[in-house]
Amino acid sequence: MCGAETTNHSTESNGFGGNLSLIDLDPGNPTVFEPYWRRMGDKCRVVIPGCELMSYKAATKPGKVCWFLLPELEDAIVRLHRLVGNAVVDDRYIVVGTGSTQLYQAALYALSTPASLKPINVVSAAPYYSCYPEETDYLCSRLYKWAGDANEYNANKSGPFIEVVNSPNNPNGSLRESVVKDCGQGKLIHDLAYYWPQFMPINRPADHDLMYFTFSKCTGHAGSRIGWALVKDREVAIKMTKYIELNSIGVSKDSQFRTAKIMELLCNEHKEFGLNSSNNFFEYGNRLMAQRWESLREAIGSSDLFSVPSFEQQHCFFLGRPTKPYPAFAWLKCNEETEDCGSLLRRYNILGRNGKRFGADAKYLRLSMLSSDDVFEDFLDRLNAIRLFEE
Amino acid sequence: MCGAETTNHSTESNGFGGNLSLIDLDPGNPTVFEPYWRRMGDKCRVVIPGCELMSYKAATKPGKVCWFLLPELEDAIVRLHRLVGNAVVDDRYIVVGTGSTQLYQAALYALSTPASLKPINVVSAAPYYSCYPEETDYLCSRLYKWAGDANEYNANKSGPFIEVVNSPNNPNGSLRESVVKDCGQGKLIHDLAYYWPQFMPINRPADHDLMYFTFSKCTGHAGSRIGWALVKDREVAIKMTKYIELNSIGVSKDSQFRTAKIMELLCNEHKEFGLNSSNNFFEYGNRLMAQRWESLREAIGSSDLFSVPSFEQQHCFFLGRPTKPYPAFAWLKCNEETEDCGSLLRRYNILGRNGKRFGADAKYLRLSMLSSDDVFEDFLDRLNAIRLFEE
Repeated sequence: MCGAETTNHSTESNGFGGNLSLIDLDPGNPTVFEPYWRRMGDKCRVVIPGCELMSYKAATKPGKVCWFLLPELEDAIVRLHRLVGNAVVDDRYIVVGTGSTQLYQAALYALSTPASLKPINVVSAAPYYSCYPEETDYLCSRLYKWAGDANEYNANKSGPFIEVVNSPNNPNGSLRESVVKDCGQGKLIHDLAYYWPQFMPINRPADHDLMYFTFSKCTGHAGSRIGWALVKDREVAIKMTKYIELNSIGVSKDSQFRTAKIMELLCNEHKEFGLNSSNNFFEYGNRLMAQRWESLREAIGSSDLFSVPSFEQQHCFFLGRPTKPYPAFAWLKCNEETEDCGSLLRRYNILGRNGKRFGADAKYLRLSMLSSDDVFEDFLDRLNAIRLFEE
Repeated sequence: MCGAETTNHSTESNGFGGNLSLIDLDPGNPTVFEPYWRRMGDKCRVVIPGCELMSYKAATKPGKVCWFLLPELEDAIVRLHRLVGNAVVDDRYIVVGTGSTQLYQAALYALSTPASLKPINVVSAAPYYSCYPEETDYLCSRLYKWAGDANEYNANKSGPFIEVVNSPNNPNGSLRESVVKDCGQGKLIHDLAYYWPQFMPINRPADHDLMYFTFSKCTGHAGSRIGWALVKDREVAIKMTKYIELNSIGVSKDSQFRTAKIMELLCNEHKEFGLNSSNNFFEYGNRLMAQRWESLREAIGSSDLFSVPSFEQQHCFFLGRPTKPYPAFAWLKCNEETEDCGSLLRRYNILGRNGKRFGADAKYLRLSMLSSDDVFEDFLDRLNAIRLFEE
């Protein structure tokens, strides 16, 4: 299950007599940022007249390849990346997608056509994003197929490949580079969904051949389903555009319009008030995520039961100060005696995503750090209670 | 090319010295309805606050399978179909898609899984919608493959199949039923994109296992990329939902919200003012399409050069009067001496879509009847001029 759907489950026996409310931290729905957008009020509302945005086409500028990309969104994307400094936008083609999920598949299509005799192998270093395998294989394409952990892939034995580099990585928050040796046979996709200052110090503009981002994680507007790819090679951008044309004849103009408006607002607020305003979204987001991680580390404490990854402080060029990575997910590890971290937490009615889904083992569990304040507080209380009962 | 992109071309020699402006009637961009929506003004504008519609999920009602379908859109779809009488909505699951293009592929996935040893054959009676072959085959799936003209398909020899029934049919406007014999081996998809009163007399509510519609053709809002399927079987609806989850983690909430608002407006206007108001969208649309078809038939006149299909008048239960079909496309046929209708019109800088793309021959050319008023007027003038020069 790759989406954000709720999971049916039954309450199991636990130290509290099974009467605990459900805390669902399996999906990564970014509701943490809603209060910010509520506070911004009318500034960020959009108004769309009934006669606007009716065409399949967009009034694209000369030389552009993505014929359904609204020019105002393209401008906003370029402006935002230049402000944040997280990606090179010069001499890049921009392709808009229905979320980064559609762009991942557009990239696979672009990098695997024309078809070879055998499907090209798609790999990513474990623990990898749990949806890559199913998104790669559900249509049983002869163009490409999932081939598992990039660390175990040997191009000399197994042939040409596509490696997906997710950096910072979902689920464990690490910064990554490609790992397969013999890159003469490989093509790279960089999934940079979480490379924003609230989650990760921005230490350089990413500069890869094919990289994509998503509005869902940038600002929390997951419902709009907007992602964008920055692509160096024109032919690859043309093929990705072709995929999206065949898959859905373009991308919602309403959501493109709304995304452009909200990105422009972020940039305008930053220009006007700088970093020291409580209105600066990324500064706000970074402090919020810092608090959450601090609270989580406190709740785990010196427990022998659980651990989460440690991160080093680094200078963030956007924030102009040192900051740690504050990933969107906690990659929780149980102690050696506990075989299945998910089962343990499920007994206390906390749902996460099992480490096995990420090519790791069941000692690990991925928990969303992006839930609403209420849910996050309940989660911390419950963690404390689990320690009392289990230790 | 399935989308609405413009085509690069060079002006060829013609009786006018090659100085004619381009009239591009290849894509079916429904700009014809824009003036109506402009006239409706503020009534149909939508306002979306920055903190709304942020979640992947929708607050779906109990028992629903499509977890990303906004309840207000579901209600509006049901209300609109009940008003128009063009489809049975009772005991149906509704699945929303990024246009009907995504739903077509979701349906293929749902009807072809679990996978068989061989890809299931996908057929449609020629002339069929020109995008079906490429949308079926671009990912080289082992689940399904395009197998051409349904009229030539023999299930007893070639095995299980999916037949796509497009009714009224794009490109030729005919009402259709399935044609392959031995339906014990077949599954049906009904593409009802054009079964709305502006294009076709509504003579009964469509009542099929799997049928889909699109907002693009219903009201002309193609830029929103919203389609919906009405599905009888729960398991099929679950699989279609799964496809859309894996393909794009749902469908733009902004566009779902806007679609719901506009559908509700259509229904409210009808309830308040009935058919005799110039504000009734379908009555307006029907009269507009009637005028266009009358003008086209006049322009073709008693010409020996071109012909278009004839249609019988039928009673429309929605409009409460007899009306003819007024298809969204003219399926233009050239006379016996002309081998390539597209080449002939291209000499006069008119672009259409070649009959070969629809599994027919080059004597046919599909021309959009949904262009803006200006473009349509130019087209009629140009047709008259062609007759003067060519006859």
